[in-house]
Amino acid sequence: MKTDKLFPFLQWLPSYGKDQLKGDLSAGLTVGIMLIPQGMAYAMLAGLEPIHGLYAVTIPLMLYALFGSSRQLAVGPVAMVSLLTAAGISGMGADGPGEYLLYALTLAFLVGLIQFSMGIFRLGFVVNFLSHPVINGFTSAAAIIIGLSQIKHLLGISLPNSEHLDIMVLAILENISGIHWATVALGIMGIVIIKYGKRIHPAFPAPLAAVAVGILMVWGLGLDTLGVKTVGNVPSGLPSFSAPSFDLSGWGTLFPIALTISLVGFAESYAIAKTVHARHKNYRLDANQELLALGIANLGAAFFKGYPITGGFSRTAVNNQAGAKTTLASVFSAILVMLTLLFFTGLFYHLPNAILAAVVLVAVSGLIDYKEPLNLWHKDKADFSMLLTTFLITLTLGIETGILAGMALSLLMVIYRASRPHMAQLGRVPGTNVFRNIKRFKNLEVKEDLLMVRIDGPIYFANVEYIREKMEKWIRDRNGKTKMIILNLESVTSIDSTGAHELSEWISNWREFEMDICISGTKGPVRDVLNRWNLISCIGSDHVFMDDQTAVAFFDQKLDQESIQKYAPYALQSNSDKKIDKSRI
Amino acid sequence: MKTDKLFPFLQWLPSYGKDQLKGDLSAGLTVGIMLIPQGMAYAMLAGLEPIHGLYAVTIPLMLYALFGSSRQLAVGPVAMVSLLTAAGISGMGADGPGEYLLYALTLAFLVGLIQFSMGIFRLGFVVNFLSHPVINGFTSAAAIIIGLSQIKHLLGISLPNSEHLDIMVLAILENISGIHWATVALGIMGIVIIKYGKRIHPAFPAPLAAVAVGILMVWGLGLDTLGVKTVGNVPSGLPSFSAPSFDLSGWGTLFPIALTISLVGFAESYAIAKTVHARHKNYRLDANQELLALGIANLGAAFFKGYPITGGFSRTAVNNQAGAKTTLASVFSAILVMLTLLFFTGLFYHLPNAILAAVVLVAVSGLIDYKEPLNLWHKDKADFSMLLTTFLITLTLGIETGILAGMALSLLMVIYRASRPHMAQLGRVPGTNVFRNIKRFKNLEVKEDLLMVRIDGPIYFANVEYIREKMEKWIRDRNGKTKMIILNLESVTSIDSTGAHELSEWISNWREFEMDICISGTKGPVRDVLNRWNLISCIGSDHVFMDDQTAVAFFDQKLDQESIQKYAPYALQSNSDKKIDKSRI
Repeated sequence: MKTDKLFPFLQWLPSYGKDQLKGDLSAGLTVGIMLIPQGMAYAMLAGLEPIHGLYAVTIPLMLYALFGSSRQLAVGPVAMVSLLTAAGISGMGADGPGEYLLYALTLAFLVGLIQFSMGIFRLGFVVNFLSHPVINGFTSAAAIIIGLSQIKHLLGISLPNSEHLDIMVLAILENISGIHWATVALGIMGIVIIKYGKRIHPAFPAPLAAVAVGILMVWGLGLDTLGVKTVGNVPSGLPSFSAPSFDLSGWGTLFPIALTISLVGFAESYAIAKTVHARHKNYRLDANQELLALGIANLGAAFFKGYPITGGFSRTAVNNQAGAKTTLASVFSAILVMLTLLFFTGLFYHLPNAILAAVVLVAVSGLIDYKEPLNLWHKDKADFSMLLTTFLITLTLGIETGILAGMALSLLMVIYRASRPHMAQLGRVPGTNVFRNIKRFKNLEVKEDLLMVRIDGPIYFANVEYIREKMEKWIRDRNGKTKMIILNLESVTSIDSTGAHELSEWISNWREFEMDICISGTKGPVRDVLNRWNLISCIGSDHVFMDDQTAVAFFDQKLDQESIQKYAPYALQSNSDKKIDKSRI
Repeated sequence: MKTDKLFPFLQWLPSYGKDQLKGDLSAGLTVGIMLIPQGMAYAMLAGLEPIHGLYAVTIPLMLYALFGSSRQLAVGPVAMVSLLTAAGISGMGADGPGEYLLYALTLAFLVGLIQFSMGIFRLGFVVNFLSHPVINGFTSAAAIIIGLSQIKHLLGISLPNSEHLDIMVLAILENISGIHWATVALGIMGIVIIKYGKRIHPAFPAPLAAVAVGILMVWGLGLDTLGVKTVGNVPSGLPSFSAPSFDLSGWGTLFPIALTISLVGFAESYAIAKTVHARHKNYRLDANQELLALGIANLGAAFFKGYPITGGFSRTAVNNQAGAKTTLASVFSAILVMLTLLFFTGLFYHLPNAILAAVVLVAVSGLIDYKEPLNLWHKDKADFSMLLTTFLITLTLGIETGILAGMALSLLMVIYRASRPHMAQLGRVPGTNVFRNIKRFKNLEVKEDLLMVRIDGPIYFANVEYIREKMEKWIRDRNGKTKMIILNLESVTSIDSTGAHELSEWISNWREFEMDICISGTKGPVRDVLNRWNLISCIGSDHVFMDDQTAVAFFDQKLDQESIQKYAPYALQSNSDKKIDKSRI
């Protein structure tokens, strides 16, 4: 591996100039200002002290800057991964916040290890197996669950942690009488500032403004003495070194959730990295390098009191809009957060939890997508049902089951598609030598004793059974009148050994039932395979044709009882030569 | 479901005649004679008393006769399933033969339940996902393991039960000094009779002859008093009713092996049923009905002191050759075994175990296939390595791991293929309007500012990433000279919503980098999808062409700075009409 592939920053560093610096600085500071409230809010969502959300964007961001192949991706805590962290750790029965933190560090360590290994073993392609509708349904459901989990902070009531819709809704209804109205007022104010603050000016740091207003109100009006819950003491200083747990039985329990976070986190991160990359293209985005970089960043989080992080949607968009040219922007963000940790943590004492809840709520409300389901309902019913299934499973059975069900669904879809290649019966367009699918075109000429079939796709173990059954059905449908079968293989891209065995079996079976068989329009690689398995000689080289019309002519002449030999010149005589010959293409 | 689909025998019963009866009677009795030694031998292989192999072919065979859709399949104990039964139960630490039998009954019950449910839920297609090379490698390895497991009976030594090659070979070597020569002599005699007895006459019941000679020799020479192990007391009478265990924790432990037996058993059974069916075709073979029938037969085995069974290779072949016309043949086989159980069990007292071992050894020696690996080595290296991997894993890590690894390998292959559709850059065959893959054909005309690509296969979530990366690579390879991309979609069979989203993203990205894009040769269903997602208007309806040459002409004219409008007549103007129009096909 070349050094500048392992350290992508070496690609831009030599030519780094003032223009880039200006963009990176402005973007880095903008994102840093977003990171302070968001980091604290998401850490709270993960069930951690808010400060760990700030720790998570110090060393890890610098590590990503060294290894990341995307130049605009802004990594850090995100809502989904934070919720998954909470869901994973809540099942461990942690004995106090110290042990809870230890589990969070261990989770970050495992996520780092998994992502790093996946990067090394070049498994980035697995993310392809989460289809678009599955991600969409999953994200909408997760946003609803995340939103509901913040209701308690917004209403100022105590609720048990849960990611199950029914339990959450029931608990909210049971505790509705305990609503703390001052907290609700602060929360609504926060939502209004964050949601409508942008209208003042696109660069207005709305979440930070909400934080400032919240702190001032609690401090000025003494709201904390009236029962408004605040962040309280935040220790100052940079994160000290921390170690994850190396208890292997704990690893076993955390592994499923770590795997889920690794995959979901990477899928989210890579999706946004791709979108932003499409606007630049002056560098190469590499899925495996991204896995590696995210893995290393998460290992950094594990050793410096953070928790699992990944590339975030909104901050990356802001980073790009604010002019980030390289990963140096992330370094500036990290520096800003570190200065805050050193000098300004005292300010957060009066920060009300309801404001942080407002930050999360506004962020995730944008993730609930109702347009795409409607769109799919009109345009692709199969994909719509995948979306709806994933959405409902996630909402009712929880986030982890939801993502697993989504992957299983996607995989089943791949298998289902792979096992059912498109097949068409062909007929002649009257007055031409063109043959088309009789289902798509009307008025085609079809002979009742000639079955012409085109197979679209490879012939291999996963689909031979389907092809055989479909052929047999079509033969049955013709009530024994079929005298010849012409297999058009022009769209067959490959044939494996199972396919070759089956093909030769079909040929001998059909011939036993007095149906002759011809092949037309094979591609080069397929012709090679047919030769290698002696299928050409099994069919007879005078039964292999360059196109449908010669095959049909052969059939017509055969019916007329004329000599077959006469037509040998039309047939493909030498199958191994590959030089161009007009009569063959 | 129609009654005669659930009970396939209703299809032949009304027209059943003398001819069929003659064939069924002769086949049924021939197979019954085979079943007596084989059933006892395989039960011994499964670690059970030999009599359970006979019990397993009473009621279960009659049940299969009622529900089976194959008319020639002969079900009963087979070597592979017997070995899997032994492997599964040996891990349970059974407390004496009574508990061992209980586990065998429970296993049969679970297998029955799984196969029955798979049949009901129409999951018969899963068997497609064991590819030919995987089955071949697995069978050869399993045959070696089964053969080795019989060595102890042949040598007259005691060995621990194991399905691990190294343990077995080591144990044989350690105990080699204890060889009992009289037992060896009997065993070799058995092998010779069974293997060469057929040469006398094809209908000669060689295994039964070996059993008879073995019994006579032990009885006449008093070999049992010299230490030759024999079957001993075999209780007479039909099997009484038995119940499997309903202890759920036991079910949990047995489930993996039950699932393996269900799949392997069904795969073996269906493969032979298909082969025989191909010689008849006067009835419909249905994978799901076969699952249902095997499931019910196994439930029968669970409740009448049998153990897991399936359709066997050699007996089915004999059944077919001996003239079986319907499943009534199986009923005759069952009746013969039941008569034996009622009146002749006393004869088996002196039957030496070595003869039963000889029956198994000869049967499995035919399963070791060295021709196909050689064949694949020459013809399909990818399939060869799948065969070899499955063979080695099965041989070293055991049967269960082997079959799971084989399925995983097959599945990975499906996913790998699905994620990498064949793609080709096209060039013009000089002097023609024909465009071909520049990798397969030499001397094609390629313009350096025109990238023509054909995608062979569907465009959907599992492969969009691969397609995008390949396109970007080809664009990069041309060092920014590309001015237009023509996507030939003639081999694209479908596009899902992820594919449609990506396609529209690619189009806008490419246009941003000043590369225009045209589409040529779409099929009907794909054109419908493109219309539904507004991709035709996104590309521009004047950029969609019926074939490559019109698209290239459009590109040439555009370069010549001439008006694009001029070429509108060539473009596909109305995409929704499906009536035939010569200029469009």
